[in-house]
Amino acid sequence: MGDERAMVIFQPSGRRGTVPKDVSLIEASRLLGVDIETLCGEKRVCGKCRVRVEEGSFTKFGIHSSMSHVSPWLEEEGKFISREEKEQGLRLGCVAKVAGDVLVFVPEESRAGKQVVSKAARDIPIEHDPAVKVYSLEVEKPSFEDPRGDFERVCEGLEGAYGLKDLKVDLHALRTLPTELRKGAWKVTVSVWMDQEVIRVQAGEMKKHFGLAIDVGTTTIAGYLCDLMTMEVVDTVSLMNPQCKYGEDIMSRISYHMDTPDGLKRMSDDVIEGLNWLIDEAVKRSHPPRKKVKKGGDETEEWIEAPEEGRTYLRLSREDIEDVALGGNTAMHHILLQLSPEFVGLAPFPPVIHRSLEIKARDLGLHINPSAYIFVLPNEAGFVGADNVGVLIAEEPYKSDEMQLIIDIGTNGELVLGNREKLISCSCATGPALEGAQIQFGMRAAPGAIERIKIDPETHEVDYKVIGREAWKSFSKPEEMQTKGICGSGILDVLAELYRSGIVLKSGRFNPEQKSKRYRRNPENNQPEFVIAWTDETAISKDVVITQKDVRQIQLAKGALYAGCKLLMGRMGIQQVDKVKIAGAFGTHVDRQKALIMGLFPDCEIDRIVSIGNAAGDGCRAALLNRAKRKEANWVARNVEYVELTVEGNFQKEFMGAMHIPHMTDPFVHLEGLVDPDILGQK
Amino acid sequence: MGDERAMVIFQPSGRRGTVPKDVSLIEASRLLGVDIETLCGEKRVCGKCRVRVEEGSFTKFGIHSSMSHVSPWLEEEGKFISREEKEQGLRLGCVAKVAGDVLVFVPEESRAGKQVVSKAARDIPIEHDPAVKVYSLEVEKPSFEDPRGDFERVCEGLEGAYGLKDLKVDLHALRTLPTELRKGAWKVTVSVWMDQEVIRVQAGEMKKHFGLAIDVGTTTIAGYLCDLMTMEVVDTVSLMNPQCKYGEDIMSRISYHMDTPDGLKRMSDDVIEGLNWLIDEAVKRSHPPRKKVKKGGDETEEWIEAPEEGRTYLRLSREDIEDVALGGNTAMHHILLQLSPEFVGLAPFPPVIHRSLEIKARDLGLHINPSAYIFVLPNEAGFVGADNVGVLIAEEPYKSDEMQLIIDIGTNGELVLGNREKLISCSCATGPALEGAQIQFGMRAAPGAIERIKIDPETHEVDYKVIGREAWKSFSKPEEMQTKGICGSGILDVLAELYRSGIVLKSGRFNPEQKSKRYRRNPENNQPEFVIAWTDETAISKDVVITQKDVRQIQLAKGALYAGCKLLMGRMGIQQVDKVKIAGAFGTHVDRQKALIMGLFPDCEIDRIVSIGNAAGDGCRAALLNRAKRKEANWVARNVEYVELTVEGNFQKEFMGAMHIPHMTDPFVHLEGLVDPDILGQK
Repeated sequence: MGDERAMVIFQPSGRRGTVPKDVSLIEASRLLGVDIETLCGEKRVCGKCRVRVEEGSFTKFGIHSSMSHVSPWLEEEGKFISREEKEQGLRLGCVAKVAGDVLVFVPEESRAGKQVVSKAARDIPIEHDPAVKVYSLEVEKPSFEDPRGDFERVCEGLEGAYGLKDLKVDLHALRTLPTELRKGAWKVTVSVWMDQEVIRVQAGEMKKHFGLAIDVGTTTIAGYLCDLMTMEVVDTVSLMNPQCKYGEDIMSRISYHMDTPDGLKRMSDDVIEGLNWLIDEAVKRSHPPRKKVKKGGDETEEWIEAPEEGRTYLRLSREDIEDVALGGNTAMHHILLQLSPEFVGLAPFPPVIHRSLEIKARDLGLHINPSAYIFVLPNEAGFVGADNVGVLIAEEPYKSDEMQLIIDIGTNGELVLGNREKLISCSCATGPALEGAQIQFGMRAAPGAIERIKIDPETHEVDYKVIGREAWKSFSKPEEMQTKGICGSGILDVLAELYRSGIVLKSGRFNPEQKSKRYRRNPENNQPEFVIAWTDETAISKDVVITQKDVRQIQLAKGALYAGCKLLMGRMGIQQVDKVKIAGAFGTHVDRQKALIMGLFPDCEIDRIVSIGNAAGDGCRAALLNRAKRKEANWVARNVEYVELTVEGNFQKEFMGAMHIPHMTDPFVHLEGLVDPDILGQK
Repeated sequence: MGDERAMVIFQPSGRRGTVPKDVSLIEASRLLGVDIETLCGEKRVCGKCRVRVEEGSFTKFGIHSSMSHVSPWLEEEGKFISREEKEQGLRLGCVAKVAGDVLVFVPEESRAGKQVVSKAARDIPIEHDPAVKVYSLEVEKPSFEDPRGDFERVCEGLEGAYGLKDLKVDLHALRTLPTELRKGAWKVTVSVWMDQEVIRVQAGEMKKHFGLAIDVGTTTIAGYLCDLMTMEVVDTVSLMNPQCKYGEDIMSRISYHMDTPDGLKRMSDDVIEGLNWLIDEAVKRSHPPRKKVKKGGDETEEWIEAPEEGRTYLRLSREDIEDVALGGNTAMHHILLQLSPEFVGLAPFPPVIHRSLEIKARDLGLHINPSAYIFVLPNEAGFVGADNVGVLIAEEPYKSDEMQLIIDIGTNGELVLGNREKLISCSCATGPALEGAQIQFGMRAAPGAIERIKIDPETHEVDYKVIGREAWKSFSKPEEMQTKGICGSGILDVLAELYRSGIVLKSGRFNPEQKSKRYRRNPENNQPEFVIAWTDETAISKDVVITQKDVRQIQLAKGALYAGCKLLMGRMGIQQVDKVKIAGAFGTHVDRQKALIMGLFPDCEIDRIVSIGNAAGDGCRAALLNRAKRKEANWVARNVEYVELTVEGNFQKEFMGAMHIPHMTDPFVHLEGLVDPDILGQK
């Protein structure tokens, strides 16, 4: 051991790096800037640092499980980890030690300082008209005078009391019907899908009817557990898309499908497994936590419920989840459903299907009520998917007179421009840089992440603020900062300041003339970099820097985004938009002024720029809770005109012009000679 | 060995008995009166005697596979049996020897002298309007100007060319769509279910679209493979219902469900497996047979196709079967769908559901096109099921002015009486005796089965005729008869003659005064029996007899049937019916005059009694090929008034009176003192 090192990747943050072998996973997480909860200070008594170990050596597309890459299981871990959990790979971070390359998943509850920007549900107005509704019913029991079948008895009861006609029934629901009827002494609660099909029959009067709105992102999957009767969002569960192991962006997933026999099925299975984890997690959280206690004698132990005081628990079962509305970009949509994404990746990028789908949960292998349907939102185009449809039905620009520009920046950028007259959309390959990914020290918006920065133009001295600490660095001792990286909202700040202080040139190149000791070339690759935080200010035992490549990534992203906006406006024949709406976590935290200055999107009055949060998820929720929204989704998916940027004649010009910092009012004037030949070669 | 004996049961005939160990299965079949094809005279060269061995010791409900109960596999069997078939238990009957209790299934093609009465399809007029229709289509390929999704492209094409609107698509069909479109250079054949849902997309112009009409009987399952485009019945495949191992009648299956955890699932799995065998068989028969040939060198062998001259083969795949219409009695319906049959067996016998069901083939585990639906015909009542609905939509008594009595005698008897004004139905517990089952020497209508008989009232000498031989016994040498048993159509003859000649009394008892050497008491159980054929006339090396118990079984069956008819007529307020229609194999071969004399059903002009064959199967076929018939089925299922005989006040009286031979014109007059106290205790 000793000098040997191993690669550790933490999910869902994606932070990675080598650490000395034999350090604990907690220690490794600290070295790599990942926060894991350790209430007891690693005394192995609080059980808060549970992580899931996904062992193996890394290959192009993921992980090969092989030998054990962490130290063996210790008996004391059993106090906090059940046998089933152990089989799933759960370990205590303070006990398990790095023994080789290893992938570690940090469950939400083990993350210290929960992510500040969460995909939380917003309050948007939704009329209560869910696809699945429930009806209480009492029927006469059969007699020789009235020997009608059980189902006919229920149907005729539902027709008499609620006017429901011509009901069909799912076979699984029908199988339980005779016994539930008799168990409830001929009083039952019936769940009916779309006034068409009985999907559940329960004895007596039952009140647990839930649905899940799920936004399947390229990187993150977020699920909102909603009460179908009250519309309340009772829980939000998110996880990293397990397909990330096949590549971070859409194209690498499409390639994996094309290069690997069974690749599509494998990716689909993975995301289904992720969704089932999400479902299980939502169900689990609706029950009190359990703890292990000694039982009577000395050696026997058992798990008992330990409800938190003052809290009530819904105590759901999987069967209580009776509906799902799900959206994702077109590639995620296709892969999830095992539809070939091959042609989505080839000009002219047609999707396999636009319209929404209603699929039995069991046909996808989702572990909710087996008779339930999954509503899959429709796609607009190959690169503007069901997630964007979700944004649109949440924001309803087609009901507005204002000319709105809706920007959804996730792993990909999707833009919609228009109002009640017309809507046009496009996709732009921003990449995930604006979210802090693909940036060397990029990280999630969590404690220790730099979110604001100032650079003195004279001295090139840096002052900054991290999430989780009020005081700026200049008012703190270095060791108080505990800096870990730069989050999405800090990235633009950094670039703006680097430029303002002359460290970076218009072209995006570091100014080779500068004398700052913070400017240096990386000894390994000889690339220029600039130190934002020195090692003694960090919690990760190394300097936090911005590299030339980082600057390029941000330039590419902002260039793609700006060019997309400009081209859509040109198509629409307008010079100005009335409103800019920014969806996604990026929107929530971006400094609107800096974004304007840096030329992320066209000019707009600053108070007309609004953040709309995870509007895609909101749209899924709207479709879950309101049937008209499902129709609206199909309508809008077919009535947004998709503009393929790459075939627009002036796209390359707009793009290259838009990459400069700051963006020129008219990029074409200064274009010649300004664009570095290596700008485009960097990606 | 030597004196040791073992029990052998042959299916689907159900013939059983003990044979000396070490005899070949062919020899055992001969001893038990089962015909297996042996073209080469057991020289092991024709390969016609292939049978499937289902080893094990017998328990109440079936077979426990344990040790090997037949002699080991011999290399020479491999000439006729492939490796897969060997794994399924196939053996050559002339090679394999009995080593213990064993169940042997004789595939249809190995049965010598095919069953004379087959569940063949009749010609009934059906208008061509199948649920699944196929459309040829050519679409434009996608371009940047027209980047519509693949499915929308197809849908809009179908709408333009055929007026199909708002089509949905099954996920499995959607998965194949993009590749089929491109494989066919944008020309495809689309199968659409009920003008609603795309269930298949094939490149180019494809003509193979088939459906199966399936009649799931308590004893026999019959499948009619139909061309959905031409309506032609291209093949008929039948098998014994594999549930027979859980008991021969409906009540014993219901008991098995109630007594055995998982019993319902087990029985359902068995019948599904049977249906899959039927499907595979239909598919297999559409290909040329294969034979093994030496290949080049000496040792290597391979299987090649050996098409029969002048025959063309459809060469179907499972996926070419795009629809199924299926009927069965209520218990078979419920068990197949894993709906509890418990309450069907308990007063007031309500079924779980009346109306028809449309279930995805994959949800039942049927190996046809995975996107296809199964249409399950509706049930009338707990004991008048979807099979009877099939009879009704085939015969359409509700469109007739004539007062029709429709009798369906299978394992159970179902009666419908009425015309366009009104229809009433009932079920009567005839048991399968009238089909030759539960009769000691009862057998299928196959060569060697006694079908006509005469008994001299003076001498009590017996003359008879067997199927497969023109000459009566009195014109034959004993060894020419090769008698094996009595088939359904012979049973009534026998009873009528036994009575006419004074051997059996009115009450059904054997006349103890008679002196015939053919009359004797069985040494084992001391029960009276009468010899129909002496050992030297038989192919089974023993006397063929009619026992007192046999007579009782027939009496019970005919009594139940007659009483049912009378009570329905009383309900309807009529003394006479205009027409009697007899469905099932029994109807095809019964001597109408004798049936009238014996009092099977009420008086009717003899030429107003007609056989309608397997009308239940015809009804399934009608539902497969015509959508209106599906609606009609639901209508009729709810508009036939079901009469529960057992709660009719005079049922017991009618029943007991009707058991006598011959039936009294007014049974009540002679009832007292005539009914033997042991009549009812026999069942």
